Amino acid sequence: MSNIDMIRAAATRLEGHARRTPMLTSPFLDEIAGRRVLVKPECLQHTGSFKYRGGRSAVSALDPETRAKGVIAFSSGNHAQGVALAAREHGVPAVIIMPADAPRMKIDNTRALGAEVVLYDRAGGESREAIGDKLKAERDLTLIRPYDDPQVIAGQGTTGLEIAAQATEMGVTAGDVLVCCGGGGLTSGIAMALEADAPGLRARPCEPEGFDDVKRSLNSGHIETNNTQSGNICDAILTPAPGQMTFPILHRLCGPGIAVTEEDCLRAMALAFQRLKLVAEPGGAVALAAALFYGDEIEGDAVICTISGGNVDADLFQRALATYGGAE
Amino acid sequence: MSNIDMIRAAATRLEGHARRTPMLTSPFLDEIAGRRVLVKPECLQHTGSFKYRGGRSAVSALDPETRAKGVIAFSSGNHAQGVALAAREHGVPAVIIMPADAPRMKIDNTRALGAEVVLYDRAGGESREAIGDKLKAERDLTLIRPYDDPQVIAGQGTTGLEIAAQATEMGVTAGDVLVCCGGGGLTSGIAMALEADAPGLRARPCEPEGFDDVKRSLNSGHIETNNTQSGNICDAILTPAPGQMTFPILHRLCGPGIAVTEEDCLRAMALAFQRLKLVAEPGGAVALAAALFYGDEIEGDAVICTISGGNVDADLFQRALATYGGAE
Repeated sequence: MSNIDMIRAAATRLEGHARRTPMLTSPFLDEIAGRRVLVKPECLQHTGSFKYRGGRSAVSALDPETRAKGVIAFSSGNHAQGVALAAREHGVPAVIIMPADAPRMKIDNTRALGAEVVLYDRAGGESREAIGDKLKAERDLTLIRPYDDPQVIAGQGTTGLEIAAQATEMGVTAGDVLVCCGGGGLTSGIAMALEADAPGLRARPCEPEGFDDVKRSLNSGHIETNNTQSGNICDAILTPAPGQMTFPILHRLCGPGIAVTEEDCLRAMALAFQRLKLVAEPGGAVALAAALFYGDEIEGDAVICTISGGNVDADLFQRALATYGGAE
Repeated sequence: MSNIDMIRAAATRLEGHARRTPMLTSPFLDEIAGRRVLVKPECLQHTGSFKYRGGRSAVSALDPETRAKGVIAFSSGNHAQGVALAAREHGVPAVIIMPADAPRMKIDNTRALGAEVVLYDRAGGESREAIGDKLKAERDLTLIRPYDDPQVIAGQGTTGLEIAAQATEMGVTAGDVLVCCGGGGLTSGIAMALEADAPGLRARPCEPEGFDDVKRSLNSGHIETNNTQSGNICDAILTPAPGQMTFPILHRLCGPGIAVTEEDCLRAMALAFQRLKLVAEPGGAVALAAALFYGDEIEGDAVICTISGGNVDADLFQRALATYGGAE
């Protein structure tokens, strides 16, 4: 089980490797939100998302003999790149099982980071688990899960240590910290860090409308699932349900969830472009969208939000700008 | 005359106000350039460009009685916003003389930052100097020049102090520092900071092809001018000639200039989007373009470049992505 000591230990292992991303502000965003908005841009993290923190934390926590045999991960996107880079930095092999229809750029990036990418046919019914289990057994690889892994959660939690320190330095000691939420690794990690270092700040998961499994699970008190796992532009956070490890943490520490429309994500992407000079992917913009456009669900004079990633194709980014780039 | 002591004093005055922007890297950019590429993203600075540093430095250096009467600046863009924000933070009035045909967003932003914007008709032959002189005299305002001002140069030079420290920390102590160059305020300020704190690093001005007055001036040893001041997408750095104050510094300290095509700026903007998750404006992308595509004019295993600003309209950014967003 993850805890604050594991997060602090992960921070020590990540020192000099993960970037300490800045905390950004804009008077124009404050005006839209009607309160101070502090933005933690993990799109500036290595590999373009916070996932490098968890990948590096998990790979660096393995004992050297185990690690030397290599690691394996299932991912269509950001976790793939985070694990691939962490493995390369440790000089160990990484095998990433990716769907053949994953975005070309994400497959190319993962390969370019030195990983062996094994594609499977999602539509044809091939079981990625069967492929993965076979490779894992043959080569004695260690599986790095995207969120239900204590060292992955600890790595993502280092974002929360930075948020606590930066917000305190900027005079914000109470309020909501809005977090882009899929399986809950980032949200639960941040929540534990805030509990320890900034107890006046409360982590709140933000999700796309129709994929608000975490919000519903927090409301009902037990794990709820989404009906589908596709059909929304926020591809990075369309997970089936909160994790078995993350949910108890979320349930204990996190405030109510916020569900955001696709159009509001595109608007938030255009504003991140215009006001912060940042590239946010749709799933990485849900928390900023919540901060800007769902103010009546938020408390306090200031709000903090993550931009969790920026790995978006040019076509979709252009769509956001063409629709919302000229106006608020 | 500016010197390193003034830069250090400016850094003290800017502490807690200007952002210490990070130094970013990407293995994908390293591969394109054929050497390590370190990127200093001043697009993440307040107001979206490094100009806030110079504006804040100059306004904060005024004696309180003089400052209280207010400041005035001529600018169609980034300097306008930098001075406006600095004046607002000091609670003093700012008058900015802007051409009526300046980009709408830049006029709106300058007003939103609390400045009194006075528009003049560039095409109709109105003299902005006449308008400015009248206002200046009537209200006893202090003129803040965009680059030929020792305190402005000192403020921009704080970027160089950060580059020296960050590059040293990353193990880069020799090589070229490519700087987006208009009138030379940023380049000369960085050059003086490097001379003091990282003498193995050499500042080199980068300009758009056809507007390479600084490059030609460094070659000839005296101030050369451009024939025109428009007709290029790099609007932020289309100045007529190097400054009277900046040129002697550039001449003493800076290596040969590099001139970059508009198309290469657009390509660099697309790569900053894809690999750094940053928004660069065309004039802010000339140095990155030089680092990536003009490698035969560069020396060393590593190169450092500034992204000096990100205030670009959505239309032009979409053009960069539509043309170069899918490939390198």
